[in-house]
Amino acid sequence: MKNLFAGLPDDQTQEHFQEFLALPGAKLERIVSYGQSTPEGEWYDQDWGEWVMVLQGEAGLLLEQDHTLIHMKPGDQYFLPANCRHRVEWTLEEQPTIWLALHLKAD
Amino acid sequence: MKNLFAGLPDDQTQEHFQEFLALPGAKLERIVSYGQSTPEGEWYDQDWGEWVMVLQGEAGLLLEQDHTLIHMKPGDQYFLPANCRHRVEWTLEEQPTIWLALHLKAD
Repeated sequence: MKNLFAGLPDDQTQEHFQEFLALPGAKLERIVSYGQSTPEGEWYDQDWGEWVMVLQGEAGLLLEQDHTLIHMKPGDQYFLPANCRHRVEWTLEEQPTIWLALHLKAD
Repeated sequence: MKNLFAGLPDDQTQEHFQEFLALPGAKLERIVSYGQSTPEGEWYDQDWGEWVMVLQGEAGLLLEQDHTLIHMKPGDQYFLPANCRHRVEWTLEEQPTIWLALHLKAD
């Protein structure tokens, strides 16, 4: 996967998680969303830090703590420390939303 | 720096390196180039791995080993292992080139 905007998956009925670089302390992943969101009532709660950025499209990232809803547009980035409970409230339905996610090993 | 496309430095006479996230094992940096390249005859030779991506603009990334010149366009990404000698041959002069660089701690 040389280019992160290219080769988007055809199947738009689900989100696609594609890890493209795995190193001892970190891994990089492209996530392509076609209007999906985290299932109702579910939260991501991870033992590792995750940095995310939106490359294309838009999304709503909700943090459980203080109920902050972050509207993410292309170029927007945010760091989620380990155990920062969060969910994706929505992604654009009109076009793919492409995320770049960096997962960092817990120390 | 919420958005990596925003707040570009005014001074176009030099490249700008802005670290925006520092963690124990990794740091993230935005690099903005205005036509600059690595000085003639110089190579980056780092003890740590570096992953780079072009977000906007274009650049030529030269690897010393086998003299590969990689034309980097928006969305293109490349991983440079530790001690992979490289240099930036050129960046666009007509518009800013925005890089995202992830520096990983040497293991």
